[in-house]
Amino acid sequence: MQSRFEPVALAHACRLINHGPTVLVTSRHGDKRNIMAAAWSMPVEFSPPRIAIVIDKATFSRELIAASGHFGVCIPTASFVQQTYAVGSVSGREGDKFERFGIASFDGPVLGVPLIEDGAAAWMECRLIPEAHTEDAYDTCFAEVVSAAADPLAFSGGHWQFSDANASLHTLHHLGAGNFVVAGKVISAAKPAAS
Amino acid sequence: MQSRFEPVALAHACRLINHGPTVLVTSRHGDKRNIMAAAWSMPVEFSPPRIAIVIDKATFSRELIAASGHFGVCIPTASFVQQTYAVGSVSGREGDKFERFGIASFDGPVLGVPLIEDGAAAWMECRLIPEAHTEDAYDTCFAEVVSAAADPLAFSGGHWQFSDANASLHTLHHLGAGNFVVAGKVISAAKPAAS
Repeated sequence: MQSRFEPVALAHACRLINHGPTVLVTSRHGDKRNIMAAAWSMPVEFSPPRIAIVIDKATFSRELIAASGHFGVCIPTASFVQQTYAVGSVSGREGDKFERFGIASFDGPVLGVPLIEDGAAAWMECRLIPEAHTEDAYDTCFAEVVSAAADPLAFSGGHWQFSDANASLHTLHHLGAGNFVVAGKVISAAKPAAS
Repeated sequence: MQSRFEPVALAHACRLINHGPTVLVTSRHGDKRNIMAAAWSMPVEFSPPRIAIVIDKATFSRELIAASGHFGVCIPTASFVQQTYAVGSVSGREGDKFERFGIASFDGPVLGVPLIEDGAAAWMECRLIPEAHTEDAYDTCFAEVVSAAADPLAFSGGHWQFSDANASLHTLHHLGAGNFVVAGKVISAAKPAAS
């Protein structure tokens, strides 16, 4: 596959979710694969790049991730809002959601997890760090990011570059019930003067 | 203090951070108090309302929270971007940041943590759930929300209500290095049709 994405340095990978976007979690084990939406994720460390993400223990994705030990995180864009909500509303146990919703995927370069570019601004491949207690008590899975890439029209130089020129690539942030707020205007703050 | 905020039902409290805003963490122990910015937080459960938040073990806030067992989460608005970045750039060990940056606070109704309304769209009081391993390994603190309130001009009926009419109350999402993206346009997705 010809990719429009460019690699993101691992030291910058956590910036992809620093601002709290809703993500798509992808997984595969054997001949089963899945894609679901997840509003609850965050970085926990920049270097090595590590994240925490909530994946309900009742989901098909959680079953595949527990079995394979890895998953993908794709960051959907404003133009992909219908598919994002759709894959968050239906279980993969009812059939392959990539096929059902016409979502093209390819295999990640390091872990081989299914990843998407059409409809996404970036992706990461993640290796689960087994933490039985938090997975059980809080559905919170920790993972290390082992590869990442992004659309250079939206993320370059280690930072998101949101502007009116790339509005269709802006990230989605779930408010609940299918309502998403799109990343809007960028504003900058100055460091405080020394006291 | 006369409050413009209205209580948020605990079942809706996690919606306040569902979309990934940068938050201000407030804390107090004895005669010391602090306020810092944190980009990394997420809900982990709606009911009971529980969150995870990354607070570096080297910070003064972490010391106060470990000693008191609770903290506040205030959700700053676009109009408060300078103060948000400032309290994230300076340690509370160098002096009281509320005074230094002219931030008015009051005591939370349940836990007595310092909370702010000027510059915030909402707040939560949180009781730490001690989890020694994740606090140590990932600086990740779990907590239960025990009270919450929000500005009804920005959050009502259990949902954020972002529009052009309340732009100064929109939430901030940190991109890194003092650059924040403000919550923008709201778009809605429809549930997929049954297969």
